[in-house]
Amino acid sequence: MTKNIVILGASGYTGAELVRLLATHGGMTIVALSADRKAGQAMGDVFPHLRHLDLPVLQKIETIDFAGVDLVFCALPHATSQAVIKTLPASVKVVDLSADFRLRDMAEYEKWYGKGHDATDLQAEAVYGLTEFYREDIAAARLVAGTGCNAATGQYALRPLIEAGVIDLDQIIIDLKTGVSGAGRSLKENLLHAELSEGAHAYAVGGTHRHLAEFDQEFSAIAGRPVTVQFTPHLLPANRGIIATVYVHGDAQQIYDTLQAAYVDEAFVETLPMGQHPSTRHVRGSNFCHIGVVADRIEGRAIVIAALDNLTKGSSGQALQNANLMLGLPETQGLMMAPVFP
Amino acid sequence: MTKNIVILGASGYTGAELVRLLATHGGMTIVALSADRKAGQAMGDVFPHLRHLDLPVLQKIETIDFAGVDLVFCALPHATSQAVIKTLPASVKVVDLSADFRLRDMAEYEKWYGKGHDATDLQAEAVYGLTEFYREDIAAARLVAGTGCNAATGQYALRPLIEAGVIDLDQIIIDLKTGVSGAGRSLKENLLHAELSEGAHAYAVGGTHRHLAEFDQEFSAIAGRPVTVQFTPHLLPANRGIIATVYVHGDAQQIYDTLQAAYVDEAFVETLPMGQHPSTRHVRGSNFCHIGVVADRIEGRAIVIAALDNLTKGSSGQALQNANLMLGLPETQGLMMAPVFP
Amino acid sequence: MTKNIVILGASGYTGAELVRLLATHGGMTIVALSADRKAGQAMGDVFPHLRHLDLPVLQKIETIDFAGVDLVFCALPHATSQAVIKTLPASVKVVDLSADFRLRDMAEYEKWYGKGHDATDLQAEAVYGLTEFYREDIAAARLVAGTGCNAATGQYALRPLIEAGVIDLDQIIIDLKTGVSGAGRSLKENLLHAELSEGAHAYAVGGTHRHLAEFDQEFSAIAGRPVTVQFTPHLLPANRGIIATVYVHGDAQQIYDTLQAAYVDEAFVETLPMGQHPSTRHVRGSNFCHIGVVADRIEGRAIVIAALDNLTKGSSGQALQNANLMLGLPETQGLMMAPVFP
Amino acid sequence: MTKNIVILGASGYTGAELVRLLATHGGMTIVALSADRKAGQAMGDVFPHLRHLDLPVLQKIETIDFAGVDLVFCALPHATSQAVIKTLPASVKVVDLSADFRLRDMAEYEKWYGKGHDATDLQAEAVYGLTEFYREDIAAARLVAGTGCNAATGQYALRPLIEAGVIDLDQIIIDLKTGVSGAGRSLKENLLHAELSEGAHAYAVGGTHRHLAEFDQEFSAIAGRPVTVQFTPHLLPANRGIIATVYVHGDAQQIYDTLQAAYVDEAFVETLPMGQHPSTRHVRGSNFCHIGVVADRIEGRAIVIAALDNLTKGSSGQALQNANLMLGLPETQGLMMAPVFP
Repeated sequence: MTKNIVILGASGYTGAELVRLLATHGGMTIVALSADRKAGQAMGDVFPHLRHLDLPVLQKIETIDFAGVDLVFCALPHATSQAVIKTLPASVKVVDLSADFRLRDMAEYEKWYGKGHDATDLQAEAVYGLTEFYREDIAAARLVAGTGCNAATGQYALRPLIEAGVIDLDQIIIDLKTGVSGAGRSLKENLLHAELSEGAHAYAVGGTHRHLAEFDQEFSAIAGRPVTVQFTPHLLPANRGIIATVYVHGDAQQIYDTLQAAYVDEAFVETLPMGQHPSTRHVRGSNFCHIGVVADRIEGRAIVIAALDNLTKGSSGQALQNANLMLGLPETQGLMMAPVFP
Repeated sequence: MTKNIVILGASGYTGAELVRLLATHGGMTIVALSADRKAGQAMGDVFPHLRHLDLPVLQKIETIDFAGVDLVFCALPHATSQAVIKTLPASVKVVDLSADFRLRDMAEYEKWYGKGHDATDLQAEAVYGLTEFYREDIAAARLVAGTGCNAATGQYALRPLIEAGVIDLDQIIIDLKTGVSGAGRSLKENLLHAELSEGAHAYAVGGTHRHLAEFDQEFSAIAGRPVTVQFTPHLLPANRGIIATVYVHGDAQQIYDTLQAAYVDEAFVETLPMGQHPSTRHVRGSNFCHIGVVADRIEGRAIVIAALDNLTKGSSGQALQNANLMLGLPETQGLMMAPVFP
Repeated sequence: MTKNIVILGASGYTGAELVRLLATHGGMTIVALSADRKAGQAMGDVFPHLRHLDLPVLQKIETIDFAGVDLVFCALPHATSQAVIKTLPASVKVVDLSADFRLRDMAEYEKWYGKGHDATDLQAEAVYGLTEFYREDIAAARLVAGTGCNAATGQYALRPLIEAGVIDLDQIIIDLKTGVSGAGRSLKENLLHAELSEGAHAYAVGGTHRHLAEFDQEFSAIAGRPVTVQFTPHLLPANRGIIATVYVHGDAQQIYDTLQAAYVDEAFVETLPMGQHPSTRHVRGSNFCHIGVVADRIEGRAIVIAALDNLTKGSSGQALQNANLMLGLPETQGLMMAPVFP
Repeated sequence: MTKNIVILGASGYTGAELVRLLATHGGMTIVALSADRKAGQAMGDVFPHLRHLDLPVLQKIETIDFAGVDLVFCALPHATSQAVIKTLPASVKVVDLSADFRLRDMAEYEKWYGKGHDATDLQAEAVYGLTEFYREDIAAARLVAGTGCNAATGQYALRPLIEAGVIDLDQIIIDLKTGVSGAGRSLKENLLHAELSEGAHAYAVGGTHRHLAEFDQEFSAIAGRPVTVQFTPHLLPANRGIIATVYVHGDAQQIYDTLQAAYVDEAFVETLPMGQHPSTRHVRGSNFCHIGVVADRIEGRAIVIAALDNLTKGSSGQALQNANLMLGLPETQGLMMAPVFP
């Protein structure tokens, strides 16, 4: 018997990506899809690439019957997400893809997101959804908070290194390049094709990107002391893909060995041979994260590069991986599709 | 027990696409991969997006043991393909992705491909691989000839209409736009990113594209008289996707009804509601073909638009669909993945 | 002494393109720039690529002093354009880039643009701005109506042929592919990078695109009888460039000779050698239009292909070419920059 | 009277870019164009975007008569360049766009370029071509060595800071992203559209890119001590444009003031207002370099971002700027065209 699934916020890119993944999952059935402004429309009209699927019509959240539902994917904007999730029946498991339950310190939430949190009790039980590092907690959780896509990429490169104490915690720079789908389907001038194609630019320069809150929280917790990284994201003329070029002080071989050991048993995180490094094209459309390590010509410095697909491993694929764990299904179910290249 | 599969010419894009599709097929095991110049290399080095798979090392064709092999996908260039296939054991089924066995008239082959055919007896038994129209013959065949990707797209738009006699056979124009991956991984100046991106151009203008040989053969056979279409392909700054805009004389509603009826039971060919028309983005990475019909403002004329992914439905997906039939597996096995959008 | 120029609607792409062209023109000085919602901002903030120029701050139209102004470029939306232009002093020459003054028949305007015209007396004196064909009228005009960018491309391919009577007037099909900048800087979901890149689709299929009104008007006037063409535009994942593939019935050599003769003395329209055909990349950023002719394999049919940059020759470059004529300057002044490739 | 110009290596992208710029320069006449393999072809056949120009037919170098020639642009590959330049008459001034004369230390040349230098006497007189910093020497030089495009970008961000002593010389990281045209028109698998579009990757990671030789030479000379930077280039799916994100330790305001003061009188280097930062799109097709400074959230650290067009300011535009100086023409002649956006 398959599990009954609801996707809230199905008219955005992460919602559509969830539907794409569930289409061949085999163990989950979508019983309701919500979209506020597009309620009443067929999913295949909003996303014609899904038109071959037999899907529920989009509806408003308040009309959904959650009886018998096993798990809800919540792909709503932050703030909205917490307001909705606190109204869901306690019997329903939740994977939230917004930023609402990522931060354990409510003061940090308010600092980065500009308003207080309205569901602090739920926050207290939420588990941070970086699967490979919170696997057991996730399997036991009722509410899992999906990570930021940039935050996930940087953490795959750095967590084992901080844990192992093999890099200088005060000299970490994450120069990240991301495709545009991470910004969602929102109508902003800077997301127009004519504005974005054929070039590149940085944004949120100087330490203002909200995913820094996750880096701060997670890296400091691992290190047992405050860790403050530099982080500059750039927008690429591509739809999917994040590549993080991480500059660290430490011994390259030791760094490589640490990462290789950390991920050797992981299905989705691939450590490339020493000296090789990844491309976003080679993880596109998949749940894989590729990581490479190169020694710099300056003794004692190394470059760690991680790449993943922001919509899959960075968001909806991660969410499904977590849902599999929460529902007692094999962790990799529905997620082993190979990347789409070229 | 899974079927044993060999892919010849695995270092090209169609070869890699076959591996991508087989990665989650479940009923086929790749027992050998050939690549002439890259023999000895790991497939994951040639195509890093496939590095998570446990695949045979690339080898030369002559070193492959075909004992116990159920089916060979032959993704070699034309001419090479016929030379290789005629050396394969008769017990092995073959899906050829080259142009070598598409044409039944050897004079036509010589006219379009510039040299005589060296395996005319094999040609005599080959079945044209447009699955939806040759399904029974394909299921019984030993050798199936994959269609040209442009030829497939145009035929999905036109075959039922010619069969039903609802369009003027002397007034057919196919204006087609294709992504660049159809040209393969060959080193040509006009395939460089700097030459191809940010614009569009036509090629093989005036009726010189080799896929016209397939249109001529198939349309004339259906009509029982010579049918000569106009066909202009254009190269797009995109990797995957073909869209054919087909201008016909006929009643739009009748045309729509004919197509709708022809494909109503097909798993992979979707007729959009009357007046709607497809985008390559909505079939990308999938085995689906979307077809739309719009009436022109000029009475008695209509536009039929068909879109598919040249590497999947136009080539490797079609090949796998045919292989499923030839091996007695469900036709859709391994092919129901949803398109990747955005 | 340079001419005093005002640009209304300077915050759109055609406005910015005018500023780009005027930057090195030498004979015109921009004395005012208008932008309604962005009034008060520096042009270099709205368009950072123009930040090196010493330009007037953006202001509301009503605050502009038109005394001493020689010519106004009006890059406002249609309907707004007519309302504004009728308030301008009679002493000021106007080049309008909107659709408002292109159509001589007010019933046609209402049919295609959905509302009546409010400046019919101005319309009566407006000259259609396809420079090469209305050169003398334009030089003498007070008000010139810039053409549609698609309409310009199709007309360069067809006008001489209709004029010369060398093609069948009832068998004209224009299959056109355009970059996205023609749609302007407006916030629409279908103009987002994630929606538009990596694929292609048709729009306004079946004879509903407004530029058809221009084809109808102009072609019928030349022929002296109604001419109704088929026209299907497609959107490309590129910013600049239009390529029109035009299918005609007629003798290819005669068609070639006719076009070659028509444009032999034109500075901006280049007829390629017989059998060659253009690419949008090779006119990008320039005021050139390239035209090619290829005979089809079907006797008596030919393909004419025209390419230009929609923002330059299709819009702002055309506007400047016309302004040069209206102000008694050399027609090519400021417009001879070579295309930007790659 | 205009100056007589020869371009050697005109069939590559930098050669074509020189022709584009000279088309509207006014003070230079191209009297010969060389291309070895394409000798005998018209430039307009090799680069159709230049077909409107009246240009000499491509010829082999040995057939060029250098009598009366004022200046040669040499756009040949390194090694070839030195062999050719040493055969040119001493009366001819030379701007070399290759790497051959950039390095003053012949051991460094051999280390980075893998072979000894065959024109060491010419090297001794060559002036490094970063115009804004070698202006007087360039004006007096017979031979000017064009800089690497990446090397130019990094130097615009860093030279004034090193000169002023406002940053820590041991903590400089240059994370650079470049478009693909910098790699030239060479046939390499990794430059194909299908390989490059839709993603990003790093290359020459760890301090192996040859432009590091220029950073080492120039920064060490300015500082009067060895300066060793970290430098990681990335390849973008765009044709033109380089953006360098430079991480430095120092006071952001002091850094900003230093850069602002250094470039305040420069025609082509624009310092954006404090806190703003550039995009490659806004310099595309132009000779401008935009620079921005942002303070990091970590006290004492700043990010300096510089962007330019690799083919123009990074190569052929720089070459023309230098040639203007060498020939006694205004430095900005032919170079003030505005960027092409969108």
